[in-house]
Amino acid sequence: MEDMTTEISAADRLEDALSGRIDHSAVDAIADLSHQVSLQELTRLVHTSTPLQSAVLFRILDKDVAVAVFENLPPGYQAELLQNLREPEVADIVEGLDPDDRAELFGELPAGVVTQLMKGLDADERKMTTAVLGYPKSAIGRYMSPEVLSLHEDWTAAEAMEVVRARIDGPETVYLLPVVGPGRVLLGVVSLRNLIAADPDTPLSEMVRESITAHALTDREAASRDFLSHRLIAMPVVDQEERLVGILTMDDVLDIVDEEDAEDIARSSGSEPLDRSYLSSSIIRLVRSRIVWLLVLAVSAILTVQVLEVYEERLDQVVILALFIPLLTGTGGNTGNQAATTVTRALAVGEVRIRDLGRVIWRELRVGFLLGAVLGVLGFIVAGLVYGPAIGLVIGLTLLSVCIMAATVGGLMPIIAKRVGADPAVFSNPFISTFCDATGLILYFSIATAVLGLR
Amino acid sequence: MEDMTTEISAADRLEDALSGRIDHSAVDAIADLSHQVSLQELTRLVHTSTPLQSAVLFRILDKDVAVAVFENLPPGYQAELLQNLREPEVADIVEGLDPDDRAELFGELPAGVVTQLMKGLDADERKMTTAVLGYPKSAIGRYMSPEVLSLHEDWTAAEAMEVVRARIDGPETVYLLPVVGPGRVLLGVVSLRNLIAADPDTPLSEMVRESITAHALTDREAASRDFLSHRLIAMPVVDQEERLVGILTMDDVLDIVDEEDAEDIARSSGSEPLDRSYLSSSIIRLVRSRIVWLLVLAVSAILTVQVLEVYEERLDQVVILALFIPLLTGTGGNTGNQAATTVTRALAVGEVRIRDLGRVIWRELRVGFLLGAVLGVLGFIVAGLVYGPAIGLVIGLTLLSVCIMAATVGGLMPIIAKRVGADPAVFSNPFISTFCDATGLILYFSIATAVLGLR
Repeated sequence: MEDMTTEISAADRLEDALSGRIDHSAVDAIADLSHQVSLQELTRLVHTSTPLQSAVLFRILDKDVAVAVFENLPPGYQAELLQNLREPEVADIVEGLDPDDRAELFGELPAGVVTQLMKGLDADERKMTTAVLGYPKSAIGRYMSPEVLSLHEDWTAAEAMEVVRARIDGPETVYLLPVVGPGRVLLGVVSLRNLIAADPDTPLSEMVRESITAHALTDREAASRDFLSHRLIAMPVVDQEERLVGILTMDDVLDIVDEEDAEDIARSSGSEPLDRSYLSSSIIRLVRSRIVWLLVLAVSAILTVQVLEVYEERLDQVVILALFIPLLTGTGGNTGNQAATTVTRALAVGEVRIRDLGRVIWRELRVGFLLGAVLGVLGFIVAGLVYGPAIGLVIGLTLLSVCIMAATVGGLMPIIAKRVGADPAVFSNPFISTFCDATGLILYFSIATAVLGLR
Repeated sequence: MEDMTTEISAADRLEDALSGRIDHSAVDAIADLSHQVSLQELTRLVHTSTPLQSAVLFRILDKDVAVAVFENLPPGYQAELLQNLREPEVADIVEGLDPDDRAELFGELPAGVVTQLMKGLDADERKMTTAVLGYPKSAIGRYMSPEVLSLHEDWTAAEAMEVVRARIDGPETVYLLPVVGPGRVLLGVVSLRNLIAADPDTPLSEMVRESITAHALTDREAASRDFLSHRLIAMPVVDQEERLVGILTMDDVLDIVDEEDAEDIARSSGSEPLDRSYLSSSIIRLVRSRIVWLLVLAVSAILTVQVLEVYEERLDQVVILALFIPLLTGTGGNTGNQAATTVTRALAVGEVRIRDLGRVIWRELRVGFLLGAVLGVLGFIVAGLVYGPAIGLVIGLTLLSVCIMAATVGGLMPIIAKRVGADPAVFSNPFISTFCDATGLILYFSIATAVLGLR
């Protein structure tokens, strides 16, 4: 009797919580209460609440409970619940939560429900609906196609071909076919080509080969680069229990990579990517995409003014020193950018890892030394002939040290960015130029002070 | 009798020409003589000469003559001739010629011979062998896969499926199937999916749909970008008579695009692409990939020294002016790079064309004005507070004019590069920075002279 009363009151309180405004604390309370209520009561509540409440409650249930509730529902209501889950309001509630809360409170939906949920939706509807799954915007689960033609390990090649023939019109691809075991657990893949070539009686379990897969929560860019570097035609997507939830095809991957490339290219020059084409963007939009970084860089460049101020007196003594400022800072910026671009690219394609930091520094030190030696000798000769050997020596030594510094800094920065979890492209070319400008000026005036014997 | 003698002597002279060193003038003579010799004589010569001579002669024949000669050869010798054509020496001779001569003297081989020539070769052998076809290194014909499973328009879907099943192991792809008419002329494509879905009695002529194709001589990057932007899974490659010679698949395309991207990225920072990974490249190789551009840029930067020399006296009067040099040139470089990167990208994806030059200039003038206005006001306030209103005015006005100049020049240069037929990336970021440095200094000192009333 005691238990009964507690339970009834928990169910009542759950109903109350659902009928209020669904904000962060309500979601929290619903999650708590759902653990105290029996499967039967939960099923009843999912069945009898308003569409929005029913969807929210179902969405918050633990995965195994959700499976049981779904299976307990009358078949007609299963379709209704799926419809409710597709409502934009439900997606809004999930999206409106803090990402951490979202990950904690909204676990993955059962794989079977996921695929049914998105069947028949076009790409845009799908992108909206996948929000309800709790995948963050950057997760590959948002981009996969849930309509996947999967085969069962028990079938023969002939049976499988029958299924392919019967369902040929629906799925996004039929050229790579995931093979699943009990509970939709992914076992591997069979290509349509192998299926056609196989003896009709061969069981799929003998033909299945291991597949490169992505988890639905994997970062979209990482999954796409993986897809491309393995030259796949399709890639199964699984949930945390290795159950098949969708398939990624080449057009999804190319859309993602096009967007990421546009972003990287824009960032490399210190601007934000445009969300529409250049000629159709308004002037204000173009200005906004550029002004932030330009301001940041201009403010950082005040550093160079301050450095020069320190040396103002010496500049006044030997005004010739000012003539070489743009040449020296320019060379530093160029050398730094060359190194940074090379290392950023090597990081992107996986040729260099964070642990290679030491090797990269040692390489760039030597490359910088050789580049600096060539430029330095030339600088010594040319500046020496025009302005005398002392100035020549200052310019030559500065070019040498600026090149060493810039190549090392340029090689170092992308790796540091990656180590602290930032995009290596954050240290964009303009950023490295600005940094090398300030450092180069300090080197220049230190060398000039020493060589020319200035006070 | 007269004719007979002429012909015999032409055949003799042809034999003589073939037995000498095969250089430009020999190839010229062989081409001339081959027009004066009968089909029978030509067939005999191809049949009886040494392997190298036979391959060279065959390669020089006009396309229609080559088809006839090939068909006249005893079947056993057809295979031998194909083997001869694969010899590296033949490729060397073709490659050794000036590209213009090559295009003139070595027409396309008959489509049937092309596909047979490369059957069974792996990717590397193929790349070497395609040289003999006379395609330049940048042509997509070098990268296509000649083992293509093509279907005939007269077949039914069931007959086509039979052929697919029988030949499933050979070709690079079976998911997109080119359909040809008489003489291998491409009519369109059928996807394997449509073939499986079709009623078995449907004739292919009813199922075939138009296909996006490439000509074998198309530039490899253009063909690949086309492939990707249309989200294809394969693309038939045809010769100038629209006869099917091969098929391009996703992995060929990704190889090309990876290489082109690496090149563009390297060039954008003024270095040459490495032909192996960063960590496995020798220090000397790294230096070589960077030193040329660095020298070019350093020599161009001498311009900035000369500009400053012109203003040396004024610098001597107001040494404070020197303090702002790196900030002003840096801002100019950054603004120029933002515009250049945006426009280069827009050109690459086809959003901007050469004829949009005027629109781009007008947009960048306004964007540069707004960016310059924001930075200029800030510069006026900050520099004015520290160094007085006159210096503040100089800095503010210079920032305004430098931003207008740099945005316009940055937007302009990639389009000009494209108009003169160069890669827009030739005007790399460092190049634009250097140009903006020199121009910015002239603006700076002109404004300073006017505002401060210097002599």
